[in-house]
Amino acid sequence: MSRITQIATRDIRFPTSRDLSGSDAMNADPDYSAAYVVLRTDAGDGLEGHAFVFTIGRGNDVEAAAVSLVGSMLEGEDVESLLADMGGTWRRLVHDSQLRWLGPEKGVMHMAIGAVVNALWDLKAKRAGLPLWQLLSRMSPAELVALVDFRYLSDALTPDEALSILERAQPGREEREAILLAQGYPAYTTTPGWLGYSDEKLERLCREAVESGFRQIKLKVGLSVEDDRRRLAIARRTVGPEIRVAIDANQRWDVDEAITWVNALAEFDIAWVEEPTSPDDILGAARIAQGIAPLPVATGEHVANRVMFKQLLQADALQVLQIDATRVAGVNENVAILLLAAKFGVPVCPHAGGVGLCEAVQHLSMLDFVAVSGSLDGRCIEFVDHLHEHFLEPVDIQDGHYRAPKAPGAGTEIDPESLSRFSYPDGAEWTSTEHQLPTLSPTVASGPHNSGVVNS
Amino acid sequence: MSRITQIATRDIRFPTSRDLSGSDAMNADPDYSAAYVVLRTDAGDGLEGHAFVFTIGRGNDVEAAAVSLVGSMLEGEDVESLLADMGGTWRRLVHDSQLRWLGPEKGVMHMAIGAVVNALWDLKAKRAGLPLWQLLSRMSPAELVALVDFRYLSDALTPDEALSILERAQPGREEREAILLAQGYPAYTTTPGWLGYSDEKLERLCREAVESGFRQIKLKVGLSVEDDRRRLAIARRTVGPEIRVAIDANQRWDVDEAITWVNALAEFDIAWVEEPTSPDDILGAARIAQGIAPLPVATGEHVANRVMFKQLLQADALQVLQIDATRVAGVNENVAILLLAAKFGVPVCPHAGGVGLCEAVQHLSMLDFVAVSGSLDGRCIEFVDHLHEHFLEPVDIQDGHYRAPKAPGAGTEIDPESLSRFSYPDGAEWTSTEHQLPTLSPTVASGPHNSGVVNS
Repeated sequence: MSRITQIATRDIRFPTSRDLSGSDAMNADPDYSAAYVVLRTDAGDGLEGHAFVFTIGRGNDVEAAAVSLVGSMLEGEDVESLLADMGGTWRRLVHDSQLRWLGPEKGVMHMAIGAVVNALWDLKAKRAGLPLWQLLSRMSPAELVALVDFRYLSDALTPDEALSILERAQPGREEREAILLAQGYPAYTTTPGWLGYSDEKLERLCREAVESGFRQIKLKVGLSVEDDRRRLAIARRTVGPEIRVAIDANQRWDVDEAITWVNALAEFDIAWVEEPTSPDDILGAARIAQGIAPLPVATGEHVANRVMFKQLLQADALQVLQIDATRVAGVNENVAILLLAAKFGVPVCPHAGGVGLCEAVQHLSMLDFVAVSGSLDGRCIEFVDHLHEHFLEPVDIQDGHYRAPKAPGAGTEIDPESLSRFSYPDGAEWTSTEHQLPTLSPTVASGPHNSGVVNS
Repeated sequence: MSRITQIATRDIRFPTSRDLSGSDAMNADPDYSAAYVVLRTDAGDGLEGHAFVFTIGRGNDVEAAAVSLVGSMLEGEDVESLLADMGGTWRRLVHDSQLRWLGPEKGVMHMAIGAVVNALWDLKAKRAGLPLWQLLSRMSPAELVALVDFRYLSDALTPDEALSILERAQPGREEREAILLAQGYPAYTTTPGWLGYSDEKLERLCREAVESGFRQIKLKVGLSVEDDRRRLAIARRTVGPEIRVAIDANQRWDVDEAITWVNALAEFDIAWVEEPTSPDDILGAARIAQGIAPLPVATGEHVANRVMFKQLLQADALQVLQIDATRVAGVNENVAILLLAAKFGVPVCPHAGGVGLCEAVQHLSMLDFVAVSGSLDGRCIEFVDHLHEHFLEPVDIQDGHYRAPKAPGAGTEIDPESLSRFSYPDGAEWTSTEHQLPTLSPTVASGPHNSGVVNS
């Protein structure tokens, strides 16, 4: 028996706004950040659970404070009990009667619970000596079902239905695991498509993406229809007809605006339209999906919880579901969302990028392939080549695929030297320069339409 | 010209769990709390803006940290500019590109923005020498429209439509203001209906509510159908056929469960069913509303923002809309929600209780009557008789009505002595006893079904 001795949190920020600053009037100057948690025990095995919430700067201290508070609720607790009943552990944190008021199940506190839950999963996988995706995809259907809280889901998915889905995928688990180990999981790249790039750079990056083996790219849109049409024409001409080209509006439009705008771009054979409007607008997304059909709507990186995903599926509001590793309350809730997607027959193509989102979310897609949907059809994981060098087990992208991770754990551990250097505001990266503490700049304050460049 | 010199935050907690503890196995032991903010300027007029986010204990420190961060973004700024363009001030805070990631527009950070916005409104009303409801309801239709961010609303409500609604209500403003000053605004009481009370106490409190002039009471339900039927029979017998009896399930049910359960209670002539399921479940609430019609669904105290309210209205998912003074991003967003309700012809009956929610929300209902819906039909404000003594201008309830406040400001200023005494964890109330810092108790950890008693 061992106990949790410490759940330590850190405010880690990468000064990514320095590189991006000035490149675009719409640039929202994000400082990619992690509200980072390390869970330690007295087991004497040297194993720690590492996890984080990804944020983009201001407020990362508040997020870290929330993680700290949630973590404090588990200090001194028996590790084996917590890890043996991860479904119960999740429910206990998410349904805490006082913390619940701060959501419920959304925003800062929900993401903080996710970080603590994911730190436990990292520890559990390390103890098992398995990468998280293998730990999860080797659990029995009943064990996976027990991870999920079906509260508020039963009108769309019951435990019995979830069990059937998982049992249906049980034959072939080993073959699919072998496929992952041999070939990896398909990736797509957002690298070519940032709004601030010149046409020449767009063309070059499109060419390089195809040469690197990617079968899908994604372009940011929404600044002007004319620019979007010109850039899509360049991209489509460069990559040819076989490569999928998705577009991402980062929530820029109202409903009717989205329909008109997207239809003006449809001729470029678009793979999906991502975040056309508010992530909360289920009915709006459904109307957009109807108005641009057969072009699919993709959304999810800002969708707060499984209840919202349930409705997006019920309303036919999305045709591609984009989970995020640190937006909902951790692995358990993402398992629920994978099951919902399987029930509705919708492919899951995770959001990634930021800090460590690629490292984290690949495990969930691999679980999906091996043990949930059993399929790669129409599925791929976003890839952005940024900040991976700070992770002990960075993603390994080869020929447009995520190679299956082999190291034990969830892949979410940052190099201790990077943790020191990028600690905010006291790390060397922040004290050794004249970098100002983030304040509200006039550009940022100018209006809502400023998130196009940075949110992948 | 004056500048904001300080936005100071405090973690204020009232040890309400001491009284409630042990009264009910389902008791979620809330400590009613306020993440409290005081906005000071160098104007030399002695005026301060006071506001808060209501929470129920754990996490109030995180909420206060969020308020502090948002406040820091305004320190040093020109007060007159901020107050002269409250619509712009709101957009600037809500759409801040980095903070937005932590929602968007939901949870801890959104509520924190609400507190800072409301502190500005309190100051603005004090400067005008008017109670907030009069300041707001004397603004021109165009000025009120300018407070609202129509982003993501335009498929349901355009600025022109909002202007028409407000212009339609312009004749009669003075008469309605006079009615409020003479008679007040109807209240209903939740006092009789807590789950833990004995049948005798229920009966006595029902009788007293009617004797005090209330025309509506509310009962908590959802523990067992049999108990609910017995208690509703007592209540209905005691108050007679003329008094409205609402029920409140505090999010306890899944969709199908809600329909079955409520239909088993329908014979008691129920005024509304409050929070039958997750506040996020728009489609679920719509199905429930269909399944229990003509019995109305009421919801809103946990609804995160105007985009969610828009959809609840579009989907016919609620027939009574319950705004809350500190859940969304302050007065501006509640004005948007009042306009949406008016557009859809749905009455607004605010949630209140907690700490200072009655004091705060009455101003919004009075605005609604004078300048938005222009109606009292089917409308009433919740009243819970709790903690009012800590406010400088406590609500004044007479003959079942909220008397119209006359003191300048938003009514949200807590007595300085109470602020000191209930500061957490260093105030006298917390240091002078053996009260433990809140930790996760086994009762709280036992499951999700534990919020029935405390959330009004």
